[in-house]
Amino acid sequence: MNPKTPTDPSPHDDRPAVVLLSGGLDSATVLAIARADGFDCHALSFAYGQRHNFELDAARNVAAAARVADHRIATIDLGLFGGSALTDAKLDVPKDRPAEQMSLGVPVTYVPARNTIFLSFALAFAETIRAADIFIGVNALDYSGYPDCRPAYINAFNAMANLATAMATEHGKQITIHAPLIDLTKAQIIERGTALGIDYALTHTCYDPDEQGRACGHCDACQLRLQGFAEAGRTDPAAYAPAM
Amino acid sequence: MNPKTPTDPSPHDDRPAVVLLSGGLDSATVLAIARADGFDCHALSFAYGQRHNFELDAARNVAAAARVADHRIATIDLGLFGGSALTDAKLDVPKDRPAEQMSLGVPVTYVPARNTIFLSFALAFAETIRAADIFIGVNALDYSGYPDCRPAYINAFNAMANLATAMATEHGKQITIHAPLIDLTKAQIIERGTALGIDYALTHTCYDPDEQGRACGHCDACQLRLQGFAEAGRTDPAAYAPAM
Repeated sequence: MNPKTPTDPSPHDDRPAVVLLSGGLDSATVLAIARADGFDCHALSFAYGQRHNFELDAARNVAAAARVADHRIATIDLGLFGGSALTDAKLDVPKDRPAEQMSLGVPVTYVPARNTIFLSFALAFAETIRAADIFIGVNALDYSGYPDCRPAYINAFNAMANLATAMATEHGKQITIHAPLIDLTKAQIIERGTALGIDYALTHTCYDPDEQGRACGHCDACQLRLQGFAEAGRTDPAAYAPAM
Repeated sequence: MNPKTPTDPSPHDDRPAVVLLSGGLDSATVLAIARADGFDCHALSFAYGQRHNFELDAARNVAAAARVADHRIATIDLGLFGGSALTDAKLDVPKDRPAEQMSLGVPVTYVPARNTIFLSFALAFAETIRAADIFIGVNALDYSGYPDCRPAYINAFNAMANLATAMATEHGKQITIHAPLIDLTKAQIIERGTALGIDYALTHTCYDPDEQGRACGHCDACQLRLQGFAEAGRTDPAAYAPAM
């Protein structure tokens, strides 16, 4: 038994949960929420053929700061199928798109079936450690062009998960997929995470960082992040590359 | 355009399909069925931390014999989570279990969420090549202890898939998960595949082969296979290790 410290919010952290952790602002906030809700968090990240590794470094730092029970990094080859600017160096990451354009249709940064693959691994991890709870930082507002960020999708995955695993079908342990950010604005997410003590300087959001890992400030993800901090009346502590 | 040969059964093989191909008897049969149904087959196999590689060699041989359009092998680390005798060398593969025991509960060879992970990758592959059809060789009779081999599971995955992908939600291309073996006995599967001209000598079934890749004849998978050939009144052309 670990003695509780004053910063340990949980009276019952023997409930294991799997938390998908990308190293970005959203999943760092989800991890803080799961921890505040009393879950013993097992973080899961992916090396999925990203164009850069800063995201995974951020995931490691966020996991360590949140003192997770466990942090596993699954190596999967999403680049095998191509089709996304996030895994295919031949495709350009769009920059300085106006907000109307970002919310129109499916962006080139969409990775086919990514959340389905991530949640499937989370399900395997959950069944192995007998965790009935899985947390994912999807958001339907900012990522309205991504079908696998919508509530109907999350509910359908949840229904499938309860038919997929022996834990649920044979042992009656029903699985819950938690998506606590799904209806929040970026500003609301930042407020929530700040209240929970997250150091957002540890997180990495940019799709196209420079060689030192500094954010570009111009891709869709950077723009959403900066706008969120502006709306929350806060300064983003992340490092940005100086303007050229 | 490839000229059609007399053995090409398909009048319309420009319909792409993703076929999950393990190298075993069942998925080889599914590939033959998909091909006979006129699909242009894109096979997908996994290097998932199996204890041996004979299965993948068999998948390559089966794919080549079926002249698939494409065969991709995705490397994923299911062993990361442990919990199955198929990926964990510390767990023993059960041998010579009576049929009653095989059908009782979830066997040690069950890999948590395996079919969910496999189907998720198939979905990513399908979306990338704009294929609306995915084939999987699950069977509810022989694998009654595996929740992710049952019709209710396949239907739930199908429903989720149609909410998960831009292909379905934005472009109206509905996905169908085909599980043509789900209600067949092993003998019926063998009859079907034999009629379609499969050389079952190419397939690999055994959970615990010897160093030359010869089947043990005693694990659950070998027993089901041998019983299927016996019931079909045929001789299994696969290589078995001589009795000790």
